[in-house]
Amino acid sequence: MAGSFRAERVVLVRAQVEVVGIGAGDPGHVTVAAVDALRRADVVFFLDKPGEARELSDLREAILATHVPGGGYRVVRAEDPPRDRAADGYADAVVDWRVRRADVCERLIAEHLGEGEVGAFLVWGDPALYDSIIAVVEDVRSRGATEFDVRVIPGVSSVSALAARHATTLNQVAGAVQITTGRRLAAGWPQDADDVVVMLDARNAFLEHLDEPGATIHWGAYVGTEDEILIAGPLAEVAERIVETRERARAEKGWIMDTYLLRRTR
Amino acid sequence: MAGSFRAERVVLVRAQVEVVGIGAGDPGHVTVAAVDALRRADVVFFLDKPGEARELSDLREAILATHVPGGGYRVVRAEDPPRDRAADGYADAVVDWRVRRADVCERLIAEHLGEGEVGAFLVWGDPALYDSIIAVVEDVRSRGATEFDVRVIPGVSSVSALAARHATTLNQVAGAVQITTGRRLAAGWPQDADDVVVMLDARNAFLEHLDEPGATIHWGAYVGTEDEILIAGPLAEVAERIVETRERARAEKGWIMDTYLLRRTR
Ligand SMILES: C[S@@+](CC[C@H](N)C(=O)[O-])C[C@H]1O[C@@H](n2cnc3c(N)ncnc32)[C@H](O)[C@@H]1O
Ligand SMILES: C[S@@+](CC[C@H](N)C(=O)[O-])C[C@H]1O[C@@H](n2cnc3c(N)ncnc32)[C@H](O)[C@@H]1O
Repeated sequence: MAGSFRAERVVLVRAQVEVVGIGAGDPGHVTVAAVDALRRADVVFFLDKPGEARELSDLREAILATHVPGGGYRVVRAEDPPRDRAADGYADAVVDWRVRRADVCERLIAEHLGEGEVGAFLVWGDPALYDSIIAVVEDVRSRGATEFDVRVIPGVSSVSALAARHATTLNQVAGAVQITTGRRLAAGWPQDADDVVVMLDARNAFLEHLDEPGATIHWGAYVGTEDEILIAGPLAEVAERIVETRERARAEKGWIMDTYLLRRTR
Repeated sequence: MAGSFRAERVVLVRAQVEVVGIGAGDPGHVTVAAVDALRRADVVFFLDKPGEARELSDLREAILATHVPGGGYRVVRAEDPPRDRAADGYADAVVDWRVRRADVCERLIAEHLGEGEVGAFLVWGDPALYDSIIAVVEDVRSRGATEFDVRVIPGVSSVSALAARHATTLNQVAGAVQITTGRRLAAGWPQDADDVVVMLDARNAFLEHLDEPGATIHWGAYVGTEDEILIAGPLAEVAERIVETRERARAEKGWIMDTYLLRRTR
């Protein structure tokens, strides 16, 4: 072998980014895979939303502390850039916000995730539903300045948690279910779905559908947490109680997170 | 106190039925709450579907064995009554099937669940999606012949698992997602949703939408298991490959379970 030339082989151990769904409030809704990922993590990234209820980020940390009591990871906190709600179109504002979020996320990864290390982003509920972190991480990766692999660990969404607490299904036999926003529901009941789950509703959009014949509602706030409130019944009968309960809860706690399933039967 | 009459107070300790979502194939997708429930269970009920792939019920048992290796529960097996596919309307057939299923379920509970005991029904994925066990258990309870409390433990659905494996979201920014069946998708793309998740599709219903401008598909079979197959891309480009892959997989294994997300951008 003497005299033969052998190029030095540089083994690059890529870093790994884990996007980890942690369930929507009940610490028991964390999966075994999520716990494993968090135990193996070198760094856990917390993106605090500006103006987010302190209690909500406490809840997230409590879930982490419950399942990885030993710690063993570095915690890196960053403030999520604020969303420009005044911008022209809602979608435009979100796209711009994603760019700024990618800047933050790229810096976090470049500065804090070493070669071969595992970094975890905790995501409320299931990362696939109304959360931008998957898209942001993919944006960062496609910029090419940082190198890492991505793995997403699905979670129990607040939609599944809501249905479970009401012991109901999301779809009727052979039927469809649509998951949508308060803004969209206010514009009309989706044409091809008798079951509709509504998230991100700041306007009690169910009030637009009080005269939908035979409609029922399964509503839940802070589902899975100690403050959980559940109300279900014929929409026209319980709507007012939901509006009041929601208002009172928001006033008392200073913030609300609620979801509901609207159902019509044919 | 002598001479005073005191009615004997009979404390009835009600039995508990747990409907436990166990994820859709990846043993890591079981939640901590599901594991706890299974560890506390006195009886685990297995409802084997007639004609169901042996491998699928093996998968279910493997998930249980992984997380509750000590056993400690009685296993009660029953054959799910066959669904009468020849019946007039699809919905009618399902309703009739539910009655027969409730008969089976009521007998299981009456014969095998003692006072104060916990019985668990294992459900694939999330019990709220295209599964009738929640409704069946509620039917049994409303018959009144058996007394028990019900608790549903949500699970990671195959929908969330599919999105995670493709590292994609289920909805676009501020958009809606509809979860539906192959039968319904064949009748048309849902009007109010640009993202559509299709389950229970025996007919490659995506082929009806090849000319939907800019449509993409994220397809997955046996997601989360060792046999997982994933294909994604522009619908018109990858549709044929999905049809062939699906056919081959079904022929080789004798059964298939697959789901996909169709997306159009505006
Ligand atoms: C930005 S979205 C994130 C959803 C999350 N990825 C999931 O899977 O549940 C936030 C919305 O989810 C719903 N939500 C989240 N957690 C909830 C809970 N514990 N109870 C009720 N609704 C909840 C509310 O509609 C809230 O507006
Ligand atoms: C009767 S439904 C039950 C769904 C289940 N409750 C859930 O949450 O996923 C069965 C359908 O779910 C989908 N499915 C279940 N497990 C799957 C897996 N591991 N991979 C792909 N599709 C799956 C298929 O579309 C299948 O036809």
